[in-house]
Amino acid sequence: MKRTYIKDLKDAIGQEVSISGWVDIRRDHGKLIFIDLRDVSGKVQMVVLPNHKEAHDAAKELRSEWVVTVTGKVNARPTKMVKEGELNGTLELEVLSIAVLSAAKELPFELGADVNMDTYLDNLPLTLRTSRACAIFTVQSTITKSYRDFFNSKGFIEFQAPKLIGDDAEGGANSFDVTYFKHIAHLAQSPQLYKQIMVGIFERVFAIGNVYRAEKHSTTRHLNEYTSMDMEMGFIKSYEDIMDMETEMLAYVTGELRKSCAAEFTLLKAAIPEVPAKIPRLTLREAQKLITAATGKDCTNEPDLEPEHERWLCDYSAKNLGSDFIFITNFPTAKRPFYTYRNEKDPAYTMGFDLLFRGVEITTGAQRIHIYDDLIASMKEKGLDPEKFKFYLQAFKYGMPPHGGFGFGLERFTGKLLGIDNVKEATLFPRDLNRIDNLLSQ
Amino acid sequence: MKRTYIKDLKDAIGQEVSISGWVDIRRDHGKLIFIDLRDVSGKVQMVVLPNHKEAHDAAKELRSEWVVTVTGKVNARPTKMVKEGELNGTLELEVLSIAVLSAAKELPFELGADVNMDTYLDNLPLTLRTSRACAIFTVQSTITKSYRDFFNSKGFIEFQAPKLIGDDAEGGANSFDVTYFKHIAHLAQSPQLYKQIMVGIFERVFAIGNVYRAEKHSTTRHLNEYTSMDMEMGFIKSYEDIMDMETEMLAYVTGELRKSCAAEFTLLKAAIPEVPAKIPRLTLREAQKLITAATGKDCTNEPDLEPEHERWLCDYSAKNLGSDFIFITNFPTAKRPFYTYRNEKDPAYTMGFDLLFRGVEITTGAQRIHIYDDLIASMKEKGLDPEKFKFYLQAFKYGMPPHGGFGFGLERFTGKLLGIDNVKEATLFPRDLNRIDNLLSQ
Repeated sequence: MKRTYIKDLKDAIGQEVSISGWVDIRRDHGKLIFIDLRDVSGKVQMVVLPNHKEAHDAAKELRSEWVVTVTGKVNARPTKMVKEGELNGTLELEVLSIAVLSAAKELPFELGADVNMDTYLDNLPLTLRTSRACAIFTVQSTITKSYRDFFNSKGFIEFQAPKLIGDDAEGGANSFDVTYFKHIAHLAQSPQLYKQIMVGIFERVFAIGNVYRAEKHSTTRHLNEYTSMDMEMGFIKSYEDIMDMETEMLAYVTGELRKSCAAEFTLLKAAIPEVPAKIPRLTLREAQKLITAATGKDCTNEPDLEPEHERWLCDYSAKNLGSDFIFITNFPTAKRPFYTYRNEKDPAYTMGFDLLFRGVEITTGAQRIHIYDDLIASMKEKGLDPEKFKFYLQAFKYGMPPHGGFGFGLERFTGKLLGIDNVKEATLFPRDLNRIDNLLSQ
Repeated sequence: MKRTYIKDLKDAIGQEVSISGWVDIRRDHGKLIFIDLRDVSGKVQMVVLPNHKEAHDAAKELRSEWVVTVTGKVNARPTKMVKEGELNGTLELEVLSIAVLSAAKELPFELGADVNMDTYLDNLPLTLRTSRACAIFTVQSTITKSYRDFFNSKGFIEFQAPKLIGDDAEGGANSFDVTYFKHIAHLAQSPQLYKQIMVGIFERVFAIGNVYRAEKHSTTRHLNEYTSMDMEMGFIKSYEDIMDMETEMLAYVTGELRKSCAAEFTLLKAAIPEVPAKIPRLTLREAQKLITAATGKDCTNEPDLEPEHERWLCDYSAKNLGSDFIFITNFPTAKRPFYTYRNEKDPAYTMGFDLLFRGVEITTGAQRIHIYDDLIASMKEKGLDPEKFKFYLQAFKYGMPPHGGFGFGLERFTGKLLGIDNVKEATLFPRDLNRIDNLLSQ
């Protein structure tokens, strides 16, 4: 018999069906055995009656996480047993036969139990099966899918950026070394140089892939491997074009989440943010004046925002500007990478921005320098050796349009969107200082 | 004035437009200066007349790869100057003004010149701008997009597989070492173990990402970093389900290529293959008998196919079975990884397959072992320590359905599809024994 997905049982009342999945919970009442079965689409309550002897004997053996194929009859529940608003709350499956596909050993703890983060992470192949984890990564997958659909619709081409690189625009301190035959290579901290090269070829490109930071911190915000969603576009007028495109992308992505992930947001008790037609924009200096006026602590000469400033600005934006998102622009040139375009009237400041969301930075973007000689000068000013970047520099030597782009941290955005405190919970298989799965702890 | 893409000029005859792009070729006839301008959408011939003095002066300075914004009038060509079948063969742009966005240095060679592979690769930011390279990577991007669309439509969830791993199912010989704080980590040779874990969570998953092989070969077939398109699906009946799903995917992908990449295939003089409703399937032993009968050299006891056998089988399939694709199945257990499901009647053979296409293997797939105790036994038989795989093994300890999947090499498939001899030309930024861009040669 063809498999029916559990979410489709409501269309099969009165029929005999075959369903497959994992035993979620089993309650043995002696004569009656109740089993909640779970597949990727949902859960259903099944009842095994003693008159179906073979099935009843098999049901006695079942335990949590056993994988089974069950045939049964879909019965409407008596009115007083209906659970309104619940998937399959109006029906029950009367089990006719059970085939065990795979038995499970005894679980180390009940699925969904409140365990500490280390235990949670050590047991991911099991703990990711909770409805909470499934909801998180369904949302995450919807974010990447809608991000792609958006940029494809805008004429962007996706490419696979190399992760194994000779050297890095961001410098060596935070990069992992790879033994590459007789050489030392590095893991890319971003696809920055490659996406710029690609603008010279396809004008508009995006890339989604892992990036690496050898951060010596194990906090709720840091990851050593994360997913960066990058874009870069040519023939822009200014960095305003990049911020506008990002705003439009966020409106599209949140719209798609509203359409297809409402249940996941309900389960996680999280709200999908409204994206205003124009996300508020403040220069760093304007932002610092506001913070200084409100807190009494002068930060107007700082080159960057502290974490508490980011939180303050997000609160301010939500309360006073009606937006969970806020762009902070024009950071000092001294604090930004060599390729960042400078304000022509005041070269001490860049044409770059951060996007803050619910207390943290989720994006860094900018217009980039596109003139070869300016780029060489900027490198030298930063103490970098242009000879090391000669592969990249060809893009500029041979004609590059004005361009810019941004990088967007998938896991951090997922976490903030869903009200998750520790970014590791919004990362499928997080790597940190002490952990690559559980291998470093052995 | 709003930018018009060059491909849309045919809809603007008689109008004044603004276009932007790269100078492809400039021909100075003294009074008349002809410039072919290129943007991501195509090329157009422009003419600069001496009566537009400022534009004419500017045009004298232009050289290949300068980036400009041009305003001009779209004129229909006189009938005898029309180039039939060519984009913009019926029109010419009369230049009114030229703004230089970025000058280019003198090119090391003419764009599109026949250079050797090392020179080609050393100059990728320039050489990727040729219409040939653009066609290759437009096709490649269409493959990944349609692969994704297909699996999304089949209820598969995409996930980001980690690349930084503690240890590898494929063993250490071919893996790159990463200095990970006080530990040694590795670069993943495939997302195999993670996609299996994910079947326990989402039943059907796919992943597209870089994988790493520390192959000490620099050939036309090897890459040290390439893109693997992986899928894995649960609740299968047998490996036939996997081959059927791959066949359906290939039919969809080639259908999309037919719809949107006809021009690219024409330019590359390549044919989009027909995908039969059922791709021919031969067991390894059947295939070897055919080869032995045809060549007189007995290979019927070999555990695997040699490259010349793969080529022979593809020729045979194309000529006698009417298919550019052929599945070879049931390789010996001794030659396949520990997780491969065995033929229940003859455990010396696996329920695995390779897909051959135009002379090479583009896919390896199989049903996998899903029973915990069987998996432990298989590991021990292969001399592997289950303790090292205890994170992965949890998926099986706690109930896993019958499942299987395949990995699909994007660059190799792109190359064979387009008749490209060296896989490096079908790889955006290839890494090999001697090359990470041009950094290892310095």
